[in-house]
Amino acid sequence: MSDPIRIGILGASGYTGAELVRLLAGHPDAQIRVLTANQQAGQPMHAVYPHLRSMDLPDLVTWEEADWSALDVAFCALPHGTSQAIVAQMPAGLKVVDLSADFRLRDVDTYAAWYGKAHQAPERQRDAVYGLTELNRTAIGHAGLVACPGCYPTAALLALSPLLDAGTVEPGDLIIDAKSGVTGAGRKVTQGLLFAEVGEGIHPYGVGKHRHAPEMEQELSLAAGADVRVNFTPHLIPMNRGELVTCHVRLAGDATAGDVRRVLGERYDAEPFVRVLPEGATPATRNVRGSNMAEIGVFPDRLPGRAVVVAAIDNLAKGSSGQAIQNMNVMLALHETRGLELQPMFP
Amino acid sequence: MSDPIRIGILGASGYTGAELVRLLAGHPDAQIRVLTANQQAGQPMHAVYPHLRSMDLPDLVTWEEADWSALDVAFCALPHGTSQAIVAQMPAGLKVVDLSADFRLRDVDTYAAWYGKAHQAPERQRDAVYGLTELNRTAIGHAGLVACPGCYPTAALLALSPLLDAGTVEPGDLIIDAKSGVTGAGRKVTQGLLFAEVGEGIHPYGVGKHRHAPEMEQELSLAAGADVRVNFTPHLIPMNRGELVTCHVRLAGDATAGDVRRVLGERYDAEPFVRVLPEGATPATRNVRGSNMAEIGVFPDRLPGRAVVVAAIDNLAKGSSGQAIQNMNVMLALHETRGLELQPMFP
Amino acid sequence: MSDPIRIGILGASGYTGAELVRLLAGHPDAQIRVLTANQQAGQPMHAVYPHLRSMDLPDLVTWEEADWSALDVAFCALPHGTSQAIVAQMPAGLKVVDLSADFRLRDVDTYAAWYGKAHQAPERQRDAVYGLTELNRTAIGHAGLVACPGCYPTAALLALSPLLDAGTVEPGDLIIDAKSGVTGAGRKVTQGLLFAEVGEGIHPYGVGKHRHAPEMEQELSLAAGADVRVNFTPHLIPMNRGELVTCHVRLAGDATAGDVRRVLGERYDAEPFVRVLPEGATPATRNVRGSNMAEIGVFPDRLPGRAVVVAAIDNLAKGSSGQAIQNMNVMLALHETRGLELQPMFP
Amino acid sequence: MSDPIRIGILGASGYTGAELVRLLAGHPDAQIRVLTANQQAGQPMHAVYPHLRSMDLPDLVTWEEADWSALDVAFCALPHGTSQAIVAQMPAGLKVVDLSADFRLRDVDTYAAWYGKAHQAPERQRDAVYGLTELNRTAIGHAGLVACPGCYPTAALLALSPLLDAGTVEPGDLIIDAKSGVTGAGRKVTQGLLFAEVGEGIHPYGVGKHRHAPEMEQELSLAAGADVRVNFTPHLIPMNRGELVTCHVRLAGDATAGDVRRVLGERYDAEPFVRVLPEGATPATRNVRGSNMAEIGVFPDRLPGRAVVVAAIDNLAKGSSGQAIQNMNVMLALHETRGLELQPMFP
Repeated sequence: MSDPIRIGILGASGYTGAELVRLLAGHPDAQIRVLTANQQAGQPMHAVYPHLRSMDLPDLVTWEEADWSALDVAFCALPHGTSQAIVAQMPAGLKVVDLSADFRLRDVDTYAAWYGKAHQAPERQRDAVYGLTELNRTAIGHAGLVACPGCYPTAALLALSPLLDAGTVEPGDLIIDAKSGVTGAGRKVTQGLLFAEVGEGIHPYGVGKHRHAPEMEQELSLAAGADVRVNFTPHLIPMNRGELVTCHVRLAGDATAGDVRRVLGERYDAEPFVRVLPEGATPATRNVRGSNMAEIGVFPDRLPGRAVVVAAIDNLAKGSSGQAIQNMNVMLALHETRGLELQPMFP
Repeated sequence: MSDPIRIGILGASGYTGAELVRLLAGHPDAQIRVLTANQQAGQPMHAVYPHLRSMDLPDLVTWEEADWSALDVAFCALPHGTSQAIVAQMPAGLKVVDLSADFRLRDVDTYAAWYGKAHQAPERQRDAVYGLTELNRTAIGHAGLVACPGCYPTAALLALSPLLDAGTVEPGDLIIDAKSGVTGAGRKVTQGLLFAEVGEGIHPYGVGKHRHAPEMEQELSLAAGADVRVNFTPHLIPMNRGELVTCHVRLAGDATAGDVRRVLGERYDAEPFVRVLPEGATPATRNVRGSNMAEIGVFPDRLPGRAVVVAAIDNLAKGSSGQAIQNMNVMLALHETRGLELQPMFP
Repeated sequence: MSDPIRIGILGASGYTGAELVRLLAGHPDAQIRVLTANQQAGQPMHAVYPHLRSMDLPDLVTWEEADWSALDVAFCALPHGTSQAIVAQMPAGLKVVDLSADFRLRDVDTYAAWYGKAHQAPERQRDAVYGLTELNRTAIGHAGLVACPGCYPTAALLALSPLLDAGTVEPGDLIIDAKSGVTGAGRKVTQGLLFAEVGEGIHPYGVGKHRHAPEMEQELSLAAGADVRVNFTPHLIPMNRGELVTCHVRLAGDATAGDVRRVLGERYDAEPFVRVLPEGATPATRNVRGSNMAEIGVFPDRLPGRAVVVAAIDNLAKGSSGQAIQNMNVMLALHETRGLELQPMFP
Repeated sequence: MSDPIRIGILGASGYTGAELVRLLAGHPDAQIRVLTANQQAGQPMHAVYPHLRSMDLPDLVTWEEADWSALDVAFCALPHGTSQAIVAQMPAGLKVVDLSADFRLRDVDTYAAWYGKAHQAPERQRDAVYGLTELNRTAIGHAGLVACPGCYPTAALLALSPLLDAGTVEPGDLIIDAKSGVTGAGRKVTQGLLFAEVGEGIHPYGVGKHRHAPEMEQELSLAAGADVRVNFTPHLIPMNRGELVTCHVRLAGDATAGDVRRVLGERYDAEPFVRVLPEGATPATRNVRGSNMAEIGVFPDRLPGRAVVVAAIDNLAKGSSGQAIQNMNVMLALHETRGLELQPMFP
């Protein structure tokens, strides 16, 4: 092995931070040099995540204490709204992979409208590349700052972008009914995420108002070559990990569900982390748990002229930390699957 | 109290059978006289359901041993396809509430097509009344045989029928994305229902092919006054009880989500078991767990001209055994809420 | 029905408060007149607990606003340490059922040692009666202030007290290995109770240091007629409700597991809410979920001279709110099962 | 890499079979050549385990079809009682790692008594080595046939054997209160393992009669140098993976909990897969999920002269398939951690 890639993780106390550590532990080229967590600074990582006790990791520091110039890559796993100012201060040569929403929306006015305040680093926003690896690999390869997609957009865009691009489905009638485990909300300590509030039940949330909607629309509009709006209806599921998006689509012209499956199959044929299932097979989040894999299935609808496209991912892996590492690999011209070859864990 | 209503439950070893017993325990007029379970005949009910050990219940017998003439009401909680022949042999005066699918489809050809064999009691089918209480109360009041709706149709029809009836939504674009806990599948001992196969994951099943689709279409067509087809996409959720249907609808003319809420609110204003939520409130299966209540919420869609209508029920209560008792109450001209006044259990 | 019993619930925003409301809804003599929740005062109860939306309940007020003189019974479901001062100000004639730990320990020094501060109402403590109904019924019948046991002590004392009283087990070797669902910790918003922290795992907590240990020891010492100490090792289980205590006991003299079962069986023969299982039957929390029932099973040990006694309860019902209502019934000379006749809910 | 180790897995359709495949996928020296599953022979592995769809694996065959002479190692993940006859027919040079109970009990009469039939390969039993790696490494290194411990014995022996060996705890008073997720029972399709039967509840099973008791006693007797009997009380927990044993021990002489921690700490200091926690830290199954790690914590007891020793493992990893690979590594003189370096997955 040549010199290791020196890595810093900002916001290591969140679930995506811990998942980055778990996955990077298996990356042969990576070495974690800095872990920040401002509230827990001074503590060892295993004080925050006891499952990592046996790893040899640097203690947590504040982000102000970190020496960015000694790093090759910084992963920002900070809460939304807090990455911008910090990224703005990072040295130019540092490769930055941001897992927050801060650099996803290209239009800063749209950002301000959905996130409730002006963007604090619009000049870095201009250079940020949207990091859905399979759909934007070339640009990611040249990027200094990659904005990793939200977990829902990752699944929905993998399912829908190639279909809009190919003209297989109508852009004006996209209904995205989504389901996520609780880690999609991070390690936020709020009543609504208590075990007793989530267990043994299901409910929708943020119907018509979720911040992942404009993000999907931005990217789907690019694929469609026209302004696209979507229905996006997420639901909270009593499980830790996993995300499933059920996309109800109207077929263009006389396209069939088989055409949808074929378009997706061809598009992802060479992709190591996207699996388009054969007819009759059903995606399940269990099939991808703990791995960077996305699984897509296509079903004919009883309604003529429609189809159902279902995508399953692990929200912490392909939906955030796994894809972030995949992007790092692309940015550094490493083999894209490095550190991401874990098989799914079932049961 | 006058003479008790003498009740028999066929198929007491399934979950809907056990739920009937639990609910009837609190019904002041009911007395369980017969419990059948052919495979466990001879055993006490608590051998099959230890949680009922403290109840004073008759031992399990085969259905052939039961004396129907000594009963006022028979609940059939048998597997699909097995009620027909048994009901055909019951005495004419016995009130029958069937929880299976056997008498739900009015058209016996449709039945044969979806259930894979000819109907065995077409003459009784002709007199069967579809038992969604709120939508068919008068006919149920005169019925000798009531076919209780499937759990998914119960929730979907409560949400959609009044809207089609009032012309508030378009009948040609109904997308019903549904989610259910595992008891919706009964106590079937199959690999797919093992804890380790269901826990920590979600997946769709029966997409475009589920038998509840023609049942919904039959009733929605009645409400719309025209043939209706629906998309129906169910998902299995890692929880015991609860069912949520997320209906994505296209609004008719210039109707709004507010109109949808108003139509439903007026329709169910006097109903004890349907609760239309005010704007901003979100249905959740937890809010109805263990009770006969249905909860409906309406949301504007980001897609213009569309809305999202969400209904939540407990699949074992309002979705089967609770509604069955509600129907019995109507058939016998009892107060409709008798035995069904349990508040939801949360957490 | 004569005049209803006018009830106030202090601390209605916690899980035990909500459970009191659920159970009292089925109590034919009870009428809830006051619900306090200082942080949510002014809101309707369904803002805090949407599952109670269809009940006709008074809005939440602060406890300072409540008119105690217009009530017959006050249930205190406040956090530990906050009941004392409030109870001290209540009018003498008001029957008080306290669900907190504030009045459980007779010795105020022991209280101070375990709860970290001096007792604030020692004069009321002197008159408080320990409210494990089956073991203390007569005193409860004359009490003005009843201190309901903790959930773990309820299960452990039901299993062990009669055995110490009868001299069937040795008092010096009591090992209580306990398991509880998350609602045992209340609705506290802490990281350790998040779904993602609790789901799919188990761990012990408070080993050798849990505050329920001195409470058990106080009551077991009474039963044994000598000072008793116990091992108490609780574990957190990924479920909402339910508590199981596995008591590993040394048999006195040549007593057998059969003797243990017989002693318990005779002791609880006439009790409506304690079920001693026959040989070979296994207690399970599912068998008592949502009900006020306790279920006890006895097993021979492979170690000669030992036995295993297992008790299962619903921590929110018999373990707190159910037993509180049972105590109220005893205090007011009502039939003890009023409002508590709900059958367990399974699945 | 030199020639790969050619591996066959018998009984690939069970959970331990699937876990072997998952873990071996990350073993740089291993190559899976044969997967048997007699009932699913002819199908691809992903027909049985869809999460392995992207792996390049041989199709399932019957064990009779497998060519053992072309393999270096055979893992037997067959149901108890079926390995014996098959192993008896294997070529002498083939290294066999058996995950079933078939070769664990050295005394064939004890085997017959607990498993209900005579051992079918007593001559191979004589050469079988008990495969708790940390406690038996040298013998495993020379073995041709290794009998991997049961999941419960793995955790219990790691916690207790060094203490008996060192004389720190009394051998006559060992109480092992254990808790396991459902995969401990394998992929058996039985009513008791359905989601709806297991979810939201806890119960003990096999109290005083579980087959892991004689296995623990065999090994603990070796450590103690005297006949040892144990209390063993397992409980079923609503989670997929994870096993926790809570050992209630009597300290020898004037030993303390600190001595217990020190003895264990020294014993496992150099072990890569056993982590003895510092004072105050609590073992949790979440901390080892998906990994081969065992975590042990020690607590003082309130009862004088006693302590509580708690061990947590993943039953499918260190409790079966992980330890099986660890044993293979030892048998083949590979680095012991090969293929087992996965960090735990949390959440």
